[in-house]
Amino acid sequence: MTATNTKLYLDDLAVGASFRSPTYGVSEEEIKRFARDYDPQPFHLDDEAAKQTFFRGLAASGWHTAAITMRLLVKGGLPLADGIIGMGGEIAWLAPVRPGDVLRVTSTVAEIAPSQSKPDRAVVRFQCSTVNQRDEVVQRIEPKLLVFKRPA
Amino acid sequence: MTATNTKLYLDDLAVGASFRSPTYGVSEEEIKRFARDYDPQPFHLDDEAAKQTFFRGLAASGWHTAAITMRLLVKGGLPLADGIIGMGGEIAWLAPVRPGDVLRVTSTVAEIAPSQSKPDRAVVRFQCSTVNQRDEVVQRIEPKLLVFKRPA
Repeated sequence: MTATNTKLYLDDLAVGASFRSPTYGVSEEEIKRFARDYDPQPFHLDDEAAKQTFFRGLAASGWHTAAITMRLLVKGGLPLADGIIGMGGEIAWLAPVRPGDVLRVTSTVAEIAPSQSKPDRAVVRFQCSTVNQRDEVVQRIEPKLLVFKRPA
Repeated sequence: MTATNTKLYLDDLAVGASFRSPTYGVSEEEIKRFARDYDPQPFHLDDEAAKQTFFRGLAASGWHTAAITMRLLVKGGLPLADGIIGMGGEIAWLAPVRPGDVLRVTSTVAEIAPSQSKPDRAVVRFQCSTVNQRDEVVQRIEPKLLVFKRPA
């Protein structure tokens, strides 16, 4: 597990290397604000209405959890020198994120696929687990990121 | 292709059925605001800095595109009676979203997997294409949604 301020290039990555992010506290106000903007459904907007739904109480939008995860990766969780450039990947939401939860992300290099046509880069698949303050995994993503070599 | 105000239950869905969303215009100000909150990287924040990057100009965060897609699904793009409850799925970003782009989403039922243990529900896999005003696909997602039968 590496927590580092060093900015990493493709040359610095190996399968199995792992990284940890800072933490982020999720407020009720932010859950509702994100929901109003992007996922205006009762279980993300209204405490009372949420109790009658599948979620049995107010829960953050899964896309909000994904956005917070991205923030945590950018803010030190995945210190890639050329930035975090995602091509896509898989996402799974495993448990609700509730008001007051404190999230963090652990990321591990799963696969490095060098580009056939462009020798300066590879597609690197990471496994990123977003966990809460009780170490429950609330989200898993397996993003495919474009990572560049250190300039010559 | 169906554009409907009817709220749909599992009983109403069949593989191949397809739905279309309203449209959403993406402003430069919103691209930067989302980026400040959730994806603070130069290519999402700063026009000049973005020109020197992989994106060759300001582009929306992929998670912002995903969030807008969700808004479009909630605002009529996928009129499910019990809401849009995602378990996860695959996502791919295929082209940058630029300031001024106008997005919309087309969704098709790809697979219906009835629950073995709970006869009132199924996991339904959709294929959702988010396209811009030039009909370029900017994002594809294949979300697995929990969909319930009409109450008896």
